Amino acid sequence: DPNLKVFTLNSNKALAEEIAKVIGVELGKCSVSRFSDGEIQINIEESIRGCDVFVIQSTSGPVNEHIMELLIMIDALKRASAKTINLVIPYYGYARQDRKARAREPITAKLVANLLETAGATRVITLDLHAPQIQGFFDIPTDQLVGVPILAEHFKNRHFDGDIVIVSPDHGGVTRARKMAERLKAPIAIIDKRRPRPNVAEVMNIVGNIEGKVAILIDDIIDTAGTITLAANALVENGALEVLACCTHPVLSGPAIERIENSKIKELVVTNTIQLGEEKRIDKIVELSVAPLIGEAIIRVHEEQSVSTLFD
Amino acid sequence: DPNLKVFTLNSNKALAEEIAKVIGVELGKCSVSRFSDGEIQINIEESIRGCDVFVIQSTSGPVNEHIMELLIMIDALKRASAKTINLVIPYYGYARQDRKARAREPITAKLVANLLETAGATRVITLDLHAPQIQGFFDIPTDQLVGVPILAEHFKNRHFDGDIVIVSPDHGGVTRARKMAERLKAPIAIIDKRRPRPNVAEVMNIVGNIEGKVAILIDDIIDTAGTITLAANALVENGALEVLACCTHPVLSGPAIERIENSKIKELVVTNTIQLGEEKRIDKIVELSVAPLIGEAIIRVHEEQSVSTLFD
Ligand SMILES: Nc1ncnc2c1ncn2[C@@H]1O[C@H](COP(=O)(O)O)[C@@H](O)[C@H]1O
Ligand SMILES: Nc1ncnc2c1ncn2[C@@H]1O[C@H](COP(=O)(O)O)[C@@H](O)[C@H]1O
Repeated sequence: DPNLKVFTLNSNKALAEEIAKVIGVELGKCSVSRFSDGEIQINIEESIRGCDVFVIQSTSGPVNEHIMELLIMIDALKRASAKTINLVIPYYGYARQDRKARAREPITAKLVANLLETAGATRVITLDLHAPQIQGFFDIPTDQLVGVPILAEHFKNRHFDGDIVIVSPDHGGVTRARKMAERLKAPIAIIDKRRPRPNVAEVMNIVGNIEGKVAILIDDIIDTAGTITLAANALVENGALEVLACCTHPVLSGPAIERIENSKIKELVVTNTIQLGEEKRIDKIVELSVAPLIGEAIIRVHEEQSVSTLFD
Repeated sequence: DPNLKVFTLNSNKALAEEIAKVIGVELGKCSVSRFSDGEIQINIEESIRGCDVFVIQSTSGPVNEHIMELLIMIDALKRASAKTINLVIPYYGYARQDRKARAREPITAKLVANLLETAGATRVITLDLHAPQIQGFFDIPTDQLVGVPILAEHFKNRHFDGDIVIVSPDHGGVTRARKMAERLKAPIAIIDKRRPRPNVAEVMNIVGNIEGKVAILIDDIIDTAGTITLAANALVENGALEVLACCTHPVLSGPAIERIENSKIKELVVTNTIQLGEEKRIDKIVELSVAPLIGEAIIRVHEEQSVSTLFD
């Protein structure tokens, strides 16, 4: 279909290539570079007049560069008379700044939504938003795909030395653990951190039975990997047979890789919503692709079909 | 006045300190840092409810970081009930992307104006926009201060070994050269570049009399310094006694410093709208301060007086 155009910016070209293959199109011709002073220079090298344009860009680190690339691309597409400008943002950055936790904080997740709309976006396709409420930050259609089925598929029908239990590393992730557990027909457990008194170290209590079991930790984002590695150690100390972990978005910043290497986590399963740099491609990490899921969503949106069966 | 608050972000703290001193206030307490993954974290550490807030930030390099800092700061101020949010942008980045020079180009200078308004800015104070039309990209009041008087003052009453002539390095800068010449009671000349035929090297023709004179080149932005150093060499080859140069915004990216060092330019006079890194503080470069000018503009805006006498 000549009216369907898929472009990639710089955050995740490998995923974009895969998505294009799934859909059966070539990526649109476009160069996204920098002027000598660091300003972004975008040249769209083919006509997109009247087309449904999909732009693939995770707002992963360097997050501010990637957001500005996306905004400038939207501006260029709008001025070049695209019919629709659909953003595919596999990882939506700034999602943890989604509320005022303290006085005088920004709500950057909402700000970025406003900026994307101001630039001219007409639709957003994303995956596992840190909080589902972020969908409401947009006034344009937003489709949130989910990573759990892809992660669950990896563990299904695999031989483990014991029964498995799905573990949420904190209270916020219990619903996600529940969804995973359903797919794997397994029970759940929760790491229940609490501070007995102010200025006293946190206590890690485990709610649920994990003794002698294979524990699979699940989270949406693993950033510095502090939470997940402490959880893994607590599980082993409390008698888990072994610990695996998985997440949709491998941010893996700062000490993350070192912590994972030195932790009790045997295997960390992630998706390719965020492109892993060479230094992050360690043996313990297994990468699964979201390209088939996103490819399917793009086709359905372009053909004006419902995307909702891709949500669970 | 407790209702006047001046904050700085990270692009030009030295200038902000100077401006605060000129006005006679302390800079507002605020930390602008990065989370482990590179996302911007802003904490405004004092109440600004009901205040006229001025935020000082040049959108110089790293331009995308500095734009995002500014947008997130505006969001935080808006949500903290600032009465007005006045942006002081001594150097407005992306100003050269102010029109579609080719098909399917973005107009990033307009995009950034829209983004700043969407975030919640209520006024902009800036200096020497690359094109004055950029004022019209905003729908909020915009004051454009000018650097020429500060630059002219530096050359006035100074002893030179010959008569001076003010030179514009290209056609676009003639009005600026004219203004400078008026203040120094000097004639003007123009470097008249043209390409005799396609795919043939440009010819540098000089319109005006420069022989035996002290030529002072003036531009708004010096970026890679290609234009200005070629102009300087052409002036010397055509009999200028010596060549000085000046500009408001010293972007000085890539090969700029090396080119200036190796050029016929004896002295380059700039302002501090863009903070010079250590490696750019060479003997040939003289830095003048725009703090008194900006300080005066802030006081007038806060007291709801006209700023227009600061424009020439
Ligand atoms: N990039 C980030 N890295 C670490 N913490 C963040 C980041 N962005 C926001 N936060 C903080 O994380 C908290 C929200 O995280 P959560 O409780 O997991 O939703 C808030 O207090 C934010 O200030
Ligand atoms: N940061 C930049 N560095 C170099 N050239 C630029 C930059 N931004 C825009 N341009 C180009 O510079 C031209 C406009 O410059 P000017 O003719 O001086 O107004 C346009 O063709 C732009 O594509």
